[in-house]
Amino acid sequence: MRYELYYWTGIQGRGEFVRLALEDAGADYVDVAREQGDAVMMPFLRGERPGTRPFAPPFLRAGRQVIAQTANILAFLAPRHGLVPASAASQCQALQWQLTIADMVAEVHDTHHPIAMELYYEDQRAEARKRAASFRHERMPKYLGYFEDILAGGDGRHTLGRRHSYVDLSLFQLMSGLEYAFPQAMKGLRRRTTRLRALAERVASRPRVAAYLASPRRVPFNEDGIFRHYPELDGA
Amino acid sequence: MRYELYYWTGIQGRGEFVRLALEDAGADYVDVAREQGDAVMMPFLRGERPGTRPFAPPFLRAGRQVIAQTANILAFLAPRHGLVPASAASQCQALQWQLTIADMVAEVHDTHHPIAMELYYEDQRAEARKRAASFRHERMPKYLGYFEDILAGGDGRHTLGRRHSYVDLSLFQLMSGLEYAFPQAMKGLRRRTTRLRALAERVASRPRVAAYLASPRRVPFNEDGIFRHYPELDGA
Repeated sequence: MRYELYYWTGIQGRGEFVRLALEDAGADYVDVAREQGDAVMMPFLRGERPGTRPFAPPFLRAGRQVIAQTANILAFLAPRHGLVPASAASQCQALQWQLTIADMVAEVHDTHHPIAMELYYEDQRAEARKRAASFRHERMPKYLGYFEDILAGGDGRHTLGRRHSYVDLSLFQLMSGLEYAFPQAMKGLRRRTTRLRALAERVASRPRVAAYLASPRRVPFNEDGIFRHYPELDGA
Repeated sequence: MRYELYYWTGIQGRGEFVRLALEDAGADYVDVAREQGDAVMMPFLRGERPGTRPFAPPFLRAGRQVIAQTANILAFLAPRHGLVPASAASQCQALQWQLTIADMVAEVHDTHHPIAMELYYEDQRAEARKRAASFRHERMPKYLGYFEDILAGGDGRHTLGRRHSYVDLSLFQLMSGLEYAFPQAMKGLRRRTTRLRALAERVASRPRVAAYLASPRRVPFNEDGIFRHYPELDGA
């Protein structure tokens, strides 16, 4: 099946979690908005296309199904492409972790947009500094410590038992984004994130992931996306 | 099976979405922290109990499985109790909507905690006023308009086809919380939420839900929970 992925052009954003799964699986997909522009998503968002209406991108068209919400898309794709074990219990566990990653990603977004999504960063800079400080000092160590412990409790190399899964791909993306946005804070957490960093390196060296990361399909991190590097939010 | 639900005592919070599903299903469950105190959750949160470690409550113990993340718990429970159709496509659709509700709930939380979860509301009051204004003017109409349209596109009475589902229970809870926290803003949206309000009334009159709401098990909304009524955040 040829999947159609729909996500904002120009940023990695939440779409990147889906893209990584599709790329790692070697799945056949078209990145529709990148080929035709963001406007192609609007009829879906207005409910003018068959299938479940998405509240926001990313969404995936798979045959007649339209599927939105990043974690939901991954839960749909993963068992079809060997990115999660077949058992219901493993899939439940994977979804739990993906949703915890999604919670952290939402908090990353709010470090630069603590007041209003519809305003520019420049209009909420003072509040962003405060929110980012709380994120760096309280939330980052808590979330990363949690996942580091999960890795320590397993085989030390994978989140889910002894198997590569989409959760590992998502943790790679989370670590990459945090390294980009908060290099100083991540430096401070180096000793407490050895397993996470090793996992991110292993994922980056998977042949299809490595090929993807080296391709022009991997849009660089930038200050329009979720992971933004503003030195003042990194404690500078 | 007797389920064990774990959630902070004294508030409805995210646990209430799970509680409503268990109550509506007439499932056998123990609300463990309410009987033994919040401390009973700590060994789970520290990873000292068998089963997947939760990042935060709510979590559910079902036999040997420990399941966290509200939407994940509901996706687990619903097919076991007739709260979602058996087809994979329907369950995918339901999870998509539950995750959209969860996104809105997280934004509700941030109206009173825009800067830091670990600080009191009183310490982020000025920022909360700004964030709440954006929430009332931009986000509330967008989210509620989306779900109102979903209802209009179906049979007008249910989110998921012609069947009662856990998504309807969650929309009831969302509407109840918003009516409590933002009565003025909700008044302004009355004409644009006729289907959502009718759905909330139908859910409230389901025999088991009605019995639950009238029982002492339904903790009243209060200013420690997610849905808080601070008149200044409602535009007063």
